[in-house]
Amino acid sequence: MKKLLLISNSTMAGEEYLGWPRQYIKEFSDKNNIKKITFVPYAGVNLSSEGLDVSFKLYTEKVSGVFKTLGVDVESVHETKDPVKMVNDAQAIVVGGGNTFHLAAKLHETKLMQTIREKVLQGIPYIGWSAGSNVACPSLKTTNDMPIIEPESFDTMGLVPFQINPHYLDANPEGHGGETRQQRIEEFLAINREIKVLGLREASLLEIEGDKMFLKGSRKLRLFEHGKEPVEYDPGTDLSFLLK
Amino acid sequence: MKKLLLISNSTMAGEEYLGWPRQYIKEFSDKNNIKKITFVPYAGVNLSSEGLDVSFKLYTEKVSGVFKTLGVDVESVHETKDPVKMVNDAQAIVVGGGNTFHLAAKLHETKLMQTIREKVLQGIPYIGWSAGSNVACPSLKTTNDMPIIEPESFDTMGLVPFQINPHYLDANPEGHGGETRQQRIEEFLAINREIKVLGLREASLLEIEGDKMFLKGSRKLRLFEHGKEPVEYDPGTDLSFLLK
Repeated sequence: MKKLLLISNSTMAGEEYLGWPRQYIKEFSDKNNIKKITFVPYAGVNLSSEGLDVSFKLYTEKVSGVFKTLGVDVESVHETKDPVKMVNDAQAIVVGGGNTFHLAAKLHETKLMQTIREKVLQGIPYIGWSAGSNVACPSLKTTNDMPIIEPESFDTMGLVPFQINPHYLDANPEGHGGETRQQRIEEFLAINREIKVLGLREASLLEIEGDKMFLKGSRKLRLFEHGKEPVEYDPGTDLSFLLK
Repeated sequence: MKKLLLISNSTMAGEEYLGWPRQYIKEFSDKNNIKKITFVPYAGVNLSSEGLDVSFKLYTEKVSGVFKTLGVDVESVHETKDPVKMVNDAQAIVVGGGNTFHLAAKLHETKLMQTIREKVLQGIPYIGWSAGSNVACPSLKTTNDMPIIEPESFDTMGLVPFQINPHYLDANPEGHGGETRQQRIEEFLAINREIKVLGLREASLLEIEGDKMFLKGSRKLRLFEHGKEPVEYDPGTDLSFLLK
């Protein structure tokens, strides 16, 4: 049975790291008896100016600090020469946010895209936030991130049949003439008519268990479909119909 | 001699379409004796819900309306079965904004990416705004747009040696926990250390003639380089050193 926690964003402004979602991560970890996670830090390109290796190390330490408070150990795929083996042996997989293009590029390069997909379909729990939620979708095409690197493909894990737009926000900053998020999603739908987009606002997440999915957190979700008016759903809503 | 007008954004909030840059477009057109432009509408995916052809047509009409006030005729590459021939015969090339990924995908598909590059290097004037400024750079990697379609390659025209980030803005909308624009550009630089990024704020543009480049408009430009503090330049500044 698939078990996923797809989180919009790690942290609200002014809060401690992974503050708001911590209670949900704890509940999910307890329920699934997770004692150790395998972390994927590839989205974190810029935690250090000393290069990617240092950045991945710092990212893992930051995440480790949080999971320790929940009694969960952390290992990271950047620590091994055989990340496929590490993921194959994982109790649970956690994919952190940052830059979705870099995350996807590295997941393809290391073959973890396919390995993680298979493990999650076999029932290994998956937690992702931001870019980590994006790559659980069929493609990265609804990310907000900058395309800083060209991945082998835009295809990602396809663990859910819809696209998530994390950090969904309603308005543009004042005086900004660029497209609003809704306009960007409408551009996506103009070219990709068959797929739904879930605007996942900050401080909200999707919890999936098998063929059940619920919206959790404190904000409504905005559902976009080609040729239809967007629809809002309240936290707590059973969204299982979107998994079909 | 290369002649380019690379504009951050078409329109300021509340203004008429192509309002603020019109005086610069007029000056550039007069100086280069432009009587007719060949327009590329491929970034405009969503001006109509009736599909891309209608969207391109409406986009061309909108742009035509503006250029008519300047005494300049407009033809569009979507109106011909041989866009390469149309561009090869062009007096001037204008690439409009919208979605950079769709623009790049179509420019590769139609082979216009290479054709436009060659014409501009031969001295045919080029005007672009937003996505149209992005594709004049070596790659699309500093766009703000959503990757709604996977282009054949992230490589673009390379008419300038730096990357532009159009619609550069300093702050995030209130309560938004995603990366600021500066953080996104720093992510780009972490992976692409050798290339400079020019944060081109709204209501500003770059004018290039041969080996000369000036910042015009009413806002400062913010220059980013790996491992250095960003530097601000005033409108009117000679930025020719960035072409080297």
